[in-house]
Amino acid sequence: MRDVAIIGIGMTRFGELWESSIRDLCVEAALACFNDAGIDRLDSITIGSMSSGLFTGQEHLASLVPDYLGRRNVPAVRVESACASGGQAVRTAFLEVASGMSDVVLAIGIEKMTDVSGGEATYALATAADQDYEAFHGVTFPGLYAMMARAHMERFGTTRDQLAQVAVKNHENGSHNPHAQFPFTVTRKQVINSVMIADPLTLLDCSPITDGAAAVLVAPAEMARELQRGPLTVITGIGHATDTISIAHRADLLHLDAIELASSRALGMAGKTIEDIDFAEVHDCFTIAEILVLESMGVVPAGQGGPATLDGLTALDGDFPVNPSGGLKSKGHPVGATGVAQICEAVTQLRGAAGDRQIPNARIALTQNMGGSGGSSVVHIVEAR
Amino acid sequence: MRDVAIIGIGMTRFGELWESSIRDLCVEAALACFNDAGIDRLDSITIGSMSSGLFTGQEHLASLVPDYLGRRNVPAVRVESACASGGQAVRTAFLEVASGMSDVVLAIGIEKMTDVSGGEATYALATAADQDYEAFHGVTFPGLYAMMARAHMERFGTTRDQLAQVAVKNHENGSHNPHAQFPFTVTRKQVINSVMIADPLTLLDCSPITDGAAAVLVAPAEMARELQRGPLTVITGIGHATDTISIAHRADLLHLDAIELASSRALGMAGKTIEDIDFAEVHDCFTIAEILVLESMGVVPAGQGGPATLDGLTALDGDFPVNPSGGLKSKGHPVGATGVAQICEAVTQLRGAAGDRQIPNARIALTQNMGGSGGSSVVHIVEAR
Repeated sequence: MRDVAIIGIGMTRFGELWESSIRDLCVEAALACFNDAGIDRLDSITIGSMSSGLFTGQEHLASLVPDYLGRRNVPAVRVESACASGGQAVRTAFLEVASGMSDVVLAIGIEKMTDVSGGEATYALATAADQDYEAFHGVTFPGLYAMMARAHMERFGTTRDQLAQVAVKNHENGSHNPHAQFPFTVTRKQVINSVMIADPLTLLDCSPITDGAAAVLVAPAEMARELQRGPLTVITGIGHATDTISIAHRADLLHLDAIELASSRALGMAGKTIEDIDFAEVHDCFTIAEILVLESMGVVPAGQGGPATLDGLTALDGDFPVNPSGGLKSKGHPVGATGVAQICEAVTQLRGAAGDRQIPNARIALTQNMGGSGGSSVVHIVEAR
Repeated sequence: MRDVAIIGIGMTRFGELWESSIRDLCVEAALACFNDAGIDRLDSITIGSMSSGLFTGQEHLASLVPDYLGRRNVPAVRVESACASGGQAVRTAFLEVASGMSDVVLAIGIEKMTDVSGGEATYALATAADQDYEAFHGVTFPGLYAMMARAHMERFGTTRDQLAQVAVKNHENGSHNPHAQFPFTVTRKQVINSVMIADPLTLLDCSPITDGAAAVLVAPAEMARELQRGPLTVITGIGHATDTISIAHRADLLHLDAIELASSRALGMAGKTIEDIDFAEVHDCFTIAEILVLESMGVVPAGQGGPATLDGLTALDGDFPVNPSGGLKSKGHPVGATGVAQICEAVTQLRGAAGDRQIPNARIALTQNMGGSGGSSVVHIVEAR
C-alpha cells in the first residue's frame, strides 16, 4: 500500500448560498483546491454527497462534476454514507492512490440543502435513519439525538449547562473561521433559552441546514515531497465502521460502537493512541453528539464528556482541543461536505495557517465523521511530516 | 497492486418483487453469494444503488445492509454513478482488495424500483440526466435514446428491423435465464408493433422497471487459489471514464466517448484487445444503446452495429456473443444491480455453468455498464485461469 499525502485543500463559504447551484459549488471548491496545490493534474474524482437526488433532483454527480470542472472523461464516483459521505469520499480517494490505480485524486464533499423547504430537507435527512422502523413513525434526527441526550442526563447527571457549553465553545472557535455559516458567539443562557426543538435540545444545540462544498487533493507521498510547497501532510490512518441503523437495536444507547471501532482502527493503522492526538474535528451535529463521540473514542470515560467540556478540556487552549473550525455547529453542516471540510481544517492547522484559531504546535490530527445516529463512521489520522 | 479474484456470485430473481423490501433483496443476494463462495468471512462491503432515496426513501444503505446481513460493524460504502452504480461497486471492491485495505469484500448491486408509481420512477431515473438542461425541459431517457436512434437511422441508414433484432436476440438469450424478468421470446414484428414510447423506440425496445439485487465476493487471487472450488475467475482489467452529462454538449451524438475510453482502458490494463474477448455483457437499456456500445468499443465500425446484429454477429452462436444473460432488455434492469449482475453472468459463463445459454470455451469476458446517456461507464475484463 502506497503512502498517501494531501497536497491541496479548498472550500466554499458555508451558508445559505442561493446564488450558487450544486455544480457551481463543486467547481468553486475544486478550483480553490487546485490553486492551493499549485498543480493541474487530475486522474480521478470521488464525490461525497448524502442525497443530491432528494435535495436537488440531480443524481449522477459522477458525470456532472468532471464535466463542469472541464475534466470530462476523468473517472469519477459518488459515494454515500449519509452524513459520513465526505469521509467516505476521502477514504475512497485514499484507496485509489494507495492501490496504485490513480496518482492524483480529487475528493469533493458537497451538499446543496436550501433549494428545498425545511420540511423537505428534514424528510431528506431522515432517510439516513431506518425508514421502516424509525422515520416511518415520525421520528427525525433531532428527536433521535434528544432521546440520547435525555438518557445521558438520566444515567450520568449530564446537565443542560454542560450540553450548552459544547455550542458556546464551537461558536467561539467558529467566530475565527471565515468559512463559517454562523461565526457569532453565544452564551450558555442564549443556547438554553433558544427555541425548543426536541426536549432537551434547543435550536442552538442543533447544527444548521447548509449549502457548501469542500475538496482535498491526494497523491502518493513520494510525489507530494517533490511538489512540496508547505509542510507535508500525510493520511497515516483510516478507520471505518458501521452499527445498527436504528438506535433501538443497540445494546447501549449511549455508546457508539461505530465511533469506537472507527477511531481505534484508524489509530491502530497510524500506530498511535488517542493520547498522541493534538486536536480533533468531530461530528457535533448536535451538542450531545460531541459528548457521545468523546466518550466513545475514549477521550474521557463514559459520563465525563459533559463535565470535561465545562472544565475546558476541549477548548482551543485545552488539553484536547475539539472542533477548532467551529464544528458542524458554527461552521455549518452541508452533510456530504462535512467530512471533507474536517480534513481541510486538519490540514490548515497542521500547516500552522489557522490564524486566530491556530492550535500551537499541532502535528497529529484526528477527524471523525458520522452517518445518521452513529450507524456509520469514518475516522482519519492526518500528520504533519 | 494485488491481483483480485471473484470467489462467489449470487442474485435474486429480477422482476416486480412486491413481497421483498430493499433490505430483503440485499440480504438474499448476499447470502446466495456467501453460499456460492463457501466461506463466511467478510472485511468490507460496497453497495451500488442509483437512488434508494428517490425510489424507497431510504439512504444510508452503508449502515442498513451490514446491519440486516448480521454483519454490523463491518465497513461499508454505497457508491453511485446512475445506472453504472453496480460497476462502481465492483470497481470499489476491487480497490479495497488491490490496495491491501481489505481481503474479502462483498459488492452488492441493488435497486427496488416498483414501490413508487411509474411516473415517480421515470422522474427518479431522469435525475441521471442533466437536471438543468435536459430533465427540466421534460426530456426523459426514452426520449434521449430515441434522439440518438433517429440520428443513427438518418446518418447510417440503420433500420427498424435492425434495432428490433437486438431485442429479439436478447429475449432469446434471456429465455434460458432463470433469473430473468421477461424470459419470453419476441419476434421483430412484435417489437416493432408494440406500443410507441418515443419514436422510433417502442415498448419492446426499452428495458423494464425492475426490482432486484446481485452480489459478488472478491478476494486476493492468492487466497482464491487456496479456497478454490471451481475455475478461478480473475478481474484482470478495469476501465472507467466519464463524458458530458448532457448529450447536447458532445461533439458526436453517436459516439460514446466514455464507453470507448472505459473499454480501451480496461483492455489495456488486461493486456488484451477487443479481438481477444470471447463474449460481452453490455448495457442495452434500449436497443439502440447496444448498437452504440458495440460501435464505440470498436467491435464493429461506426454504422455497422445494426447490420452486424441482423447478420447474427452478436447471437449466442455468433463470433462475438453479446448479452448471453438476456441483457437489461430481457433479464431486467434494477439499475444499481445491473453492473454487478453482468459480472455474475460473466463468472457463470467462465465456469461453464450457464446451461442452455452457455458459450462454448468462454475464457475472457468483458462487461460494460453505463450511466445516463453515456455520461459514465465502467468496464471490467474477467478471465478464467
